[in-house]
Amino acid sequence: MSVPATAVTPPLADDLDIVIPTIRNLDFLEQWRPFFQPYHLIIVQDGDPTKTIRVPDGFDYELYNRNDINRILGPRSSCISFKDSACRCFGFLVSKKKYIFTIDDDCFVAKDPSGQEINALAQHIHNLLTPATPYFFNTLYDPFREGADFVRGYPFSLREGVTTAISHGLWLNIPDYDAPTQLVKPLERNSRYVDAVLTIPKGTLFPMCGMNLGFHRELIGPAMYFGLMGDGQPIGRYDDMWAGWCAKVICDHLGLGVKTGLPYIWHSKASNPFVNLKKEYKGIYWQEEIIPFFQSVVLPKDCTTPQKCYVELSKLVKEKLGPVDPYFVKLAGEMVTWIDAWNELNPSADVAPVKKTDAVAPKKK
Amino acid sequence: MSVPATAVTPPLADDLDIVIPTIRNLDFLEQWRPFFQPYHLIIVQDGDPTKTIRVPDGFDYELYNRNDINRILGPRSSCISFKDSACRCFGFLVSKKKYIFTIDDDCFVAKDPSGQEINALAQHIHNLLTPATPYFFNTLYDPFREGADFVRGYPFSLREGVTTAISHGLWLNIPDYDAPTQLVKPLERNSRYVDAVLTIPKGTLFPMCGMNLGFHRELIGPAMYFGLMGDGQPIGRYDDMWAGWCAKVICDHLGLGVKTGLPYIWHSKASNPFVNLKKEYKGIYWQEEIIPFFQSVVLPKDCTTPQKCYVELSKLVKEKLGPVDPYFVKLAGEMVTWIDAWNELNPSADVAPVKKTDAVAPKKK
Repeated sequence: MSVPATAVTPPLADDLDIVIPTIRNLDFLEQWRPFFQPYHLIIVQDGDPTKTIRVPDGFDYELYNRNDINRILGPRSSCISFKDSACRCFGFLVSKKKYIFTIDDDCFVAKDPSGQEINALAQHIHNLLTPATPYFFNTLYDPFREGADFVRGYPFSLREGVTTAISHGLWLNIPDYDAPTQLVKPLERNSRYVDAVLTIPKGTLFPMCGMNLGFHRELIGPAMYFGLMGDGQPIGRYDDMWAGWCAKVICDHLGLGVKTGLPYIWHSKASNPFVNLKKEYKGIYWQEEIIPFFQSVVLPKDCTTPQKCYVELSKLVKEKLGPVDPYFVKLAGEMVTWIDAWNELNPSADVAPVKKTDAVAPKKK
Repeated sequence: MSVPATAVTPPLADDLDIVIPTIRNLDFLEQWRPFFQPYHLIIVQDGDPTKTIRVPDGFDYELYNRNDINRILGPRSSCISFKDSACRCFGFLVSKKKYIFTIDDDCFVAKDPSGQEINALAQHIHNLLTPATPYFFNTLYDPFREGADFVRGYPFSLREGVTTAISHGLWLNIPDYDAPTQLVKPLERNSRYVDAVLTIPKGTLFPMCGMNLGFHRELIGPAMYFGLMGDGQPIGRYDDMWAGWCAKVICDHLGLGVKTGLPYIWHSKASNPFVNLKKEYKGIYWQEEIIPFFQSVVLPKDCTTPQKCYVELSKLVKEKLGPVDPYFVKLAGEMVTWIDAWNELNPSADVAPVKKTDAVAPKKK
C-alpha cells in the first residue's frame, strides 16, 4: 500500500510530536509541508544558543536551545549531549504526546518507484498502529499489510501479534554507512526501494538509525535516551545505536515489537568521513564488546515499566561495560539522570503498567 | 541485481541437482528450459508407479517411482512418504551433488517489475554462494548484494558472515496460505515484489515452503527430511514445515545461515482448500506445541555434523512430542531410518566435520 500524498484527515494529529534536532534554518520543512503541517514540532537547537533558527511560516512549533535545556533540567541537563544530534532526546522528554516521529534536517521527501511522493510520517503511523510479530518470522513480511497475511505454518496463537513500539524507517540516496565504509565506497548510493516492513525478531539486535524514526513514547520513550556524545565526550555517531540497543532489549523484555523497512526518506548529504572517523573510532572497537553485552542482557521479571528496565540496564552497563572504559561509568550515571528527568517531567508515568495490547489494531479484514 | 535471463556459463552445473516431485507430465519444464537445461534433474514420481511421466526432450534426468524407492531402500523405504510431495526428499538422498534446488511442477517463471523473466535458480545459487549474517540484523538487508553493504553500527567482527546453507524463495500470484486463510481469502493474490534477500536471524524459526528452495546438500541435506505425510498418515502439508523447523534449529547449532526472499517463482494453481483443511487440521493444533518445542531445542556440543544433530533431534522429538500424539514416536523412528539411509547412500558423509567457511565468498569489492 502506498500512502496517498494528500491525506484526508491527518492521523494522530493530537497524539504525535515531530522532533527535529538542528543547527541551521529549517528550510527542509518546505518540502515536508503537506505532510508535517498538521503536527506539532519540537525543535531542539544544537550548539550556540545565541544563533537564530528560522522556521518556515505556518508550522506549529516550540524551540529549545541549550539555555532552555539548562533552565528546564537544572543540574540534570548534564545528561543531554551538546554539539551533537543526540540532543534530540530532550524533545522526547518534554513532549506530552503518545507518539514521536524524529527526523534529521538533511532528510527530504523520497519517491516510490511509481514516482509518488512518500508520506513517511503516515507510513510510520501505520507501522505503529498495526501489531508486530517478533516471535516467528513471516516470509511474506508484514502480515497486517493489504494483500498479505500470515503464511502456511505460522502458528495461529501468535497471529494476534504484539504492540509495535518502534518503527525504523530507511533512506534512499546516501546510505547510513560508518566512516570506514564511507571512505571505501564514497560513491555508493542506495537506489533500491524494498517494498517491505518487517518485525525484527525477539532476541535479535539491529543498528537503529535516528534519521527517520517513529516510536510509541509512552511505551518505550524512557529507553530512547541518545546517550552522551559530541562536545566533551570521547565518542560520536553512536547516539542512535545506543538508544537502539537499549530499546530493543527492553522491547524484547516487555513484549513490544520493533519494525524496520518502509518508509524511505531521501537522505541528501553525506557527512564528512574523516570527521566521522574521528567521532566513531572508539565506538568501532567498543561495539565489539557492547554487542555481546546487550545480547546477553537479562532483565528481572519485576521490571514492568521502561523506566524500571532502564535503571536496571544502567546498573548492568556500569558493571559490565565500566571495565571497558570509564566513559561507560559516566554514561551509566547519566542514564539514571535521564530517568530522573523523565519522571520529573512526566509525573506518574512510571506508575501505570505497560499496556501490552494498547495499540494492537483488531485483525484486519 | 536482477539476474540476466541468458547466463553465459551456467554456475554450478556440475555441482547442483534439480529435484522435482510430480504426479504428471512435466510440461512446466518447457518454460524453465533456458534456465534448467544445463542441469541434471532428479524426478521423484509420486503415487502410481505404473503411470508414465513424460519429460520434455533435451533434459538430462533420472526418474524414480515407488518401485525404485522400494528397491533402493528396501525396508528403509518406510521413511519415504507415499502420495505426497514429501517424497521429494528421496531425491536429496540419491543425489551426489553439493547443492540441491527443488521446485514444484505448478511453479512457473515469474517476471520482475521491469518485465524481465527471473532466473530463480541463478538467484538461489547467488544466495547460497554468498555469506549469511544470522547474528545481527542489517537494515539494508543482504549486505553482499551489489549496491548494499553493512550499515553504521554493524559490528565489524560479524561482517565475514557464515556459510549459507538454505535459500528460501518466494512466490508471486498464489500465496502459500493454510486452508483456513485460503477459505477466508479465496481471491487473495501476491502481487508485491519485495526486492530483498535477508538472513533469518539465529534463534528465529520460519515457515519453510518447499515449492522453491535451494540448499547446500553436503552441509544440511541430512536435516532436509520431509517427514511422514500423505497415504496412511494423519497429516499432510507439513512436510516442508517439518524440514524447515528441523533444519533451522540445526543450522543455528552448526553456525550456518538461512536466507529468505528473492527469487520469486510464479505459483499458478491454488490447491483445494477443503482437501487441504482435511490434511492440515491436526497440524494446525499440533504446531502450537511443536513450535515451542523447536524454540527450546538445545543440541549437545558434540553434535558437529547434521547427521549427529538429526539423530539427537529425533530423540527429543520422541521424548517431548511423543506425548502429544503417537504419530511423533513413529516419525522420530523414521527420522533415524532416514539418517541410516542417508549414511548408506552417502558413505563417509558423516565423517568430515562441517566446514563452516566452505562457501563463504571473499568479501566483495
